[in-house]
Amino acid sequence: MVGYAFMGAAHSQGWRTAGRVFDLPRTPVLTAICGRDATAVRAAAERHGWASAETDWRALVERDDIDLVDICTPGDSHAEIALAALAAGKHVLCEKPLANSVEEAEAMTAAAEQAYARGQLAMVGFNYRRVPATALARSMVAEGRLGRLRHVRVTYLQDWLVDPQFPLTWRLRKEIAGSGSLGDLGAHIIDLAQYLTGERLSGVSALTETFVRERPLPGGAVKGLSAVSAETATGQVTVDDAAVFTGRFPSGALASFEATRYATGRKNALRIELNGEHGSLAFDLERLNELSYHDGTEPGAHAGFRRILVTEPDHPYLDAWWPPGHGLGYEHTFVHQARDLVHAVAEGRQPEPSFADGLQVQRVLAAVEESAEKNSVYTPIAV
Amino acid sequence: MVGYAFMGAAHSQGWRTAGRVFDLPRTPVLTAICGRDATAVRAAAERHGWASAETDWRALVERDDIDLVDICTPGDSHAEIALAALAAGKHVLCEKPLANSVEEAEAMTAAAEQAYARGQLAMVGFNYRRVPATALARSMVAEGRLGRLRHVRVTYLQDWLVDPQFPLTWRLRKEIAGSGSLGDLGAHIIDLAQYLTGERLSGVSALTETFVRERPLPGGAVKGLSAVSAETATGQVTVDDAAVFTGRFPSGALASFEATRYATGRKNALRIELNGEHGSLAFDLERLNELSYHDGTEPGAHAGFRRILVTEPDHPYLDAWWPPGHGLGYEHTFVHQARDLVHAVAEGRQPEPSFADGLQVQRVLAAVEESAEKNSVYTPIAV
Amino acid sequence: MVGYAFMGAAHSQGWRTAGRVFDLPRTPVLTAICGRDATAVRAAAERHGWASAETDWRALVERDDIDLVDICTPGDSHAEIALAALAAGKHVLCEKPLANSVEEAEAMTAAAEQAYARGQLAMVGFNYRRVPATALARSMVAEGRLGRLRHVRVTYLQDWLVDPQFPLTWRLRKEIAGSGSLGDLGAHIIDLAQYLTGERLSGVSALTETFVRERPLPGGAVKGLSAVSAETATGQVTVDDAAVFTGRFPSGALASFEATRYATGRKNALRIELNGEHGSLAFDLERLNELSYHDGTEPGAHAGFRRILVTEPDHPYLDAWWPPGHGLGYEHTFVHQARDLVHAVAEGRQPEPSFADGLQVQRVLAAVEESAEKNSVYTPIAV
Amino acid sequence: MVGYAFMGAAHSQGWRTAGRVFDLPRTPVLTAICGRDATAVRAAAERHGWASAETDWRALVERDDIDLVDICTPGDSHAEIALAALAAGKHVLCEKPLANSVEEAEAMTAAAEQAYARGQLAMVGFNYRRVPATALARSMVAEGRLGRLRHVRVTYLQDWLVDPQFPLTWRLRKEIAGSGSLGDLGAHIIDLAQYLTGERLSGVSALTETFVRERPLPGGAVKGLSAVSAETATGQVTVDDAAVFTGRFPSGALASFEATRYATGRKNALRIELNGEHGSLAFDLERLNELSYHDGTEPGAHAGFRRILVTEPDHPYLDAWWPPGHGLGYEHTFVHQARDLVHAVAEGRQPEPSFADGLQVQRVLAAVEESAEKNSVYTPIAV
Repeated sequence: MVGYAFMGAAHSQGWRTAGRVFDLPRTPVLTAICGRDATAVRAAAERHGWASAETDWRALVERDDIDLVDICTPGDSHAEIALAALAAGKHVLCEKPLANSVEEAEAMTAAAEQAYARGQLAMVGFNYRRVPATALARSMVAEGRLGRLRHVRVTYLQDWLVDPQFPLTWRLRKEIAGSGSLGDLGAHIIDLAQYLTGERLSGVSALTETFVRERPLPGGAVKGLSAVSAETATGQVTVDDAAVFTGRFPSGALASFEATRYATGRKNALRIELNGEHGSLAFDLERLNELSYHDGTEPGAHAGFRRILVTEPDHPYLDAWWPPGHGLGYEHTFVHQARDLVHAVAEGRQPEPSFADGLQVQRVLAAVEESAEKNSVYTPIAV
Repeated sequence: MVGYAFMGAAHSQGWRTAGRVFDLPRTPVLTAICGRDATAVRAAAERHGWASAETDWRALVERDDIDLVDICTPGDSHAEIALAALAAGKHVLCEKPLANSVEEAEAMTAAAEQAYARGQLAMVGFNYRRVPATALARSMVAEGRLGRLRHVRVTYLQDWLVDPQFPLTWRLRKEIAGSGSLGDLGAHIIDLAQYLTGERLSGVSALTETFVRERPLPGGAVKGLSAVSAETATGQVTVDDAAVFTGRFPSGALASFEATRYATGRKNALRIELNGEHGSLAFDLERLNELSYHDGTEPGAHAGFRRILVTEPDHPYLDAWWPPGHGLGYEHTFVHQARDLVHAVAEGRQPEPSFADGLQVQRVLAAVEESAEKNSVYTPIAV
Repeated sequence: MVGYAFMGAAHSQGWRTAGRVFDLPRTPVLTAICGRDATAVRAAAERHGWASAETDWRALVERDDIDLVDICTPGDSHAEIALAALAAGKHVLCEKPLANSVEEAEAMTAAAEQAYARGQLAMVGFNYRRVPATALARSMVAEGRLGRLRHVRVTYLQDWLVDPQFPLTWRLRKEIAGSGSLGDLGAHIIDLAQYLTGERLSGVSALTETFVRERPLPGGAVKGLSAVSAETATGQVTVDDAAVFTGRFPSGALASFEATRYATGRKNALRIELNGEHGSLAFDLERLNELSYHDGTEPGAHAGFRRILVTEPDHPYLDAWWPPGHGLGYEHTFVHQARDLVHAVAEGRQPEPSFADGLQVQRVLAAVEESAEKNSVYTPIAV
Repeated sequence: MVGYAFMGAAHSQGWRTAGRVFDLPRTPVLTAICGRDATAVRAAAERHGWASAETDWRALVERDDIDLVDICTPGDSHAEIALAALAAGKHVLCEKPLANSVEEAEAMTAAAEQAYARGQLAMVGFNYRRVPATALARSMVAEGRLGRLRHVRVTYLQDWLVDPQFPLTWRLRKEIAGSGSLGDLGAHIIDLAQYLTGERLSGVSALTETFVRERPLPGGAVKGLSAVSAETATGQVTVDDAAVFTGRFPSGALASFEATRYATGRKNALRIELNGEHGSLAFDLERLNELSYHDGTEPGAHAGFRRILVTEPDHPYLDAWWPPGHGLGYEHTFVHQARDLVHAVAEGRQPEPSFADGLQVQRVLAAVEESAEKNSVYTPIAV
């Protein structure tokens, strides 16, 4: 695994736990973790249960005792590492967003397709597909329970940038993060909307905004960043703070999206609602053990949105966990991701979401940025 | 009052009840109700408590014993009746949307301003300003509790058109209704968003859609409508089924709007959320006795969205109603509207929302339609 | 009508409105209202739309132009007025609780039964049976949707006595109110539980408590009350502040009840949940337009408590009101009560709940008090 | 660890994960797991990460390489194993309920107190104290935010026995489980109510019921159980299906409790609400990342129950987990339990809840059973 911060910890928990809960065809071995700081990465190896540590990802991807490379770094290094790992014959799991540009994502997808022909697999880490409630929602859509879709309504609301004194972290710098709320939060909801509907967006119309354009520098030296003003030690925010956009799906459904870090009081409100001719579904990540379902074919007098507590043995992933009603949390999505990837590897079949899925999300992100720059004009997305 | 269908019944309930609950400076007298069908309008007068009935609104507006004309007809006759009533020296209450075009609304607003100089008042019926919870929300925004606004998120979701066999009523015909979900539902949420923020939208980017383009004709002869096909007796839907649009407020806040009659399971989901630097507010018309408030200045460990049950004596309008916790319903907005208008008349001051407010909503509706026709390009709104 | 305070206002609204909304076989005429204070009662008559006022209820019940007497006074005068009105040949609607003692309630019930033989009707005002959501719940239980009942869980939580400085009003004095939370709130939930289940409680085990035993006297002279202490001008609270009790229904279902005015933050939380072998229902008066239903016969993967928005035309009472999703409020229960009673009068059939129903509630209240006095021992209730 | 079923898996997850997330003063080593079936226990050791397996708990408790024995068996063996482990000089963590009788619990508590003098620690596994939301609630009560308590309202509702064909597992047999819903669910809510209030119940009045008295035998031979009827292969349910009881706390607060496995649609509804003079708190285990709080000292116009999303760094346990808004699940309570016990061991201080706490819960359970047998009479609880 490359990277050992928040995502590294979450992925480690996934790899460590998957075999304790699920019957896996192969047992994941946590061989090596990689980071630039030797001391820190050794501590991370110890903490998260990795057998060894590396400080150079190039060394890591060349090791013979490693079959799969899990990339948990910021987006600016995804392409380089993934291409090298694929070239070195490894399977690859890459955190989302797949890359910081469509070009990088295209190169990665091409490499993944060639590697697939050699028996290597590549997957992008849109973990929210693996919340039991969203997996259940996908199966309900696929069964036709909603009928023809009319509306898709998605938000991903957080509030950690509300305070203008919050420092200028790497997530606020375009050269590292690629974009702001758009790539961080927007990528999740674009993927989830496309996954749940089984469709790819045809085009978008977008507004983006950076509400606070200058922020204090974080403590310590920051790579490639000089202060806007020496006195106040502030720097320029170079990414979007929020993006709101609308779009169309090929089926004719209308979609609306909002990604922001300025929704005071909303901590992790990834909310999605689908309205179809025969029913509706709604989900809120802040209540991730629940799925809301309206069955429009029910007699009107007794119909209503039902709150399905997605904690029962016949729900996705749940027969391996606890008794009915005993909820899961955020990190379980990574356990499920690890489980599904191990199964795919054992069976030699393409895991989902593929790099091609990641590329398509990247194209939507690019279209959003293009539309926002061009007066919100509706911008088609190449398939 | 002109018109005696749904809106006529609701307004009648408002006029009849206001003086029973509130201390009013003048007592409303329900003098005459007007409709084209003599038998039906007499029955409506009897049912709703009006002392007499008229079949020609021109006669009604000329009557000496009438001080105020309340217009509850579809939008295509608003302008003509309102202009005549103002010319006849009456106060006017006109249902929303103010008119079917910006031109009509401009004429009405000009006439209202001239009439105001003569002591006559004109008001447009955006009744959702008078839900106690929205009135409370407005006062909280005005007090500065949210600080600088970042996001405004509004939907008005209904589902009564989901069934493609639902007939082609007047609300689906452009020549009568002006537009579809946009003018019916969108007008409400535009007004409410502007009322709550205290700002007027600078511009919008929009998508509209008509999902079902042909519907069965309703039973009986329909004015000005011929069947598309004699065999199936269907006709063309000439209005939008849904509108999704984004926009900007002068303060820099981003807004998103959605109006639809195809959100299966949503009956009357007018939902609005405001996120500001210091706090957030959320409201859902399906739970109209509640307001959700997050006070961002609270210590983080104890902060959260609180559900204010807006049923207490220190909430707007509520000291005149029932003890704490005894909720109100939809029709009470019309009682409050009647109360506020009677006070304005007694004091000779301009009631809100004015025809000018209604005109501005009309301009937003026109900009939405223009943007939707022009590939969603961001369309500024004249102030 | 006798009494013109809170209940008088609510009943007046019911009588005034029923014929405006529903097709009634007879038209209620608001003939006379009665209260001791001549000035106040004349003002109330004017305010609430009664044609005349009386200061002596004995005069009222003797008037020839009155067919029905509606008793909205505190419980200590219910028996005397109701007996006189029945003796005078009137139909009677009596607010709950039916009386302040089982003996009074027995006498009233006997008189009502004799009067029924003469064609007179008597009804007790448990208005919460006439919330559309509770009426829907009753019909669902009666259809057998829940199957054999296992649990009935009911609370009625308010908080207006939390402050020890709240004054000693008539509701806190046993000689007027009969009991405290028990008779005021407990009577409602006992009736509602019995109505919804279609069963009568077999016995109860109870705890009651008076948390604050001395309170400031309200301003002004108070009938029959002298200060405990001249200095502080406080008086003794002589009723329960809260009652918690459990019970059994003949079907074997277990029940729990709680009535209190000390549940900080709960304004009107009459909550009831029924769990049966095939399904469950839940209701909360603070969200009175909703009914929660779990259909236990659904496949587990898609089952859940559904929130039925009880605002649709095929729900009880609602076809006469507004379009789908337009909620009602507290006072509508009185409109429905008036409607149902007018129908019963026109058809000469016994309205529900009858005085016998009110008597049975009184017996439960007495059993609760007896159990609380006898160390919570299970106390059977005579049928 | 003794036992490797549901609880064994949950505790293993706790022991395995605690050191990966928290900075622990000592590192837990999963030395040996014990069960009667050699094959099964070896598989469990492999699955859950234990280094070795034992088939005799007596051998386990004598091993020198074990410092702490974690007892996850049914209640009938708790006392014997715990006493032996304490005698062997081990620290002990024992699942709840502490024992199947007051006598056993007394012996265990006495042994634990003697062992404490020798430096050994004993803890009982009421894991719901370690949900971040309940831990936060406890701290808020302890800070005096609720003031004097008036009401405690607790339910623990499940529905897995609704179907009369569900088999007669060990949990339905008194000789193994001790009691039914009472000991399984009731023990949790008694402990939680006492933990949150910081008080111990003074007495209780109870009803219990067994709704379905005969159930099919589960497949395979069942220890000590013969079929009631050879033909139908059913057996007698010898425990309660449900218990409802009321009680008093020394402060004067009234309490109500309900534990059942027949609440159709409720999967894990451990709900607790505390109402105090200055505020209220509410919690629902089905939404375990939330705490509901009403601050009664707020101005009435803006007060309401706020939903605290207990996922922030300044909430109990959460600084070691994920970013704001990323929820935890059921099993995290066991991680926190392991963390807290490791800290207590390192510091040599008594962990909470102690065996004495477990004994007191046992006394409440016994009082509930006694009251239920004696016509619900109020039954005091020795302190």
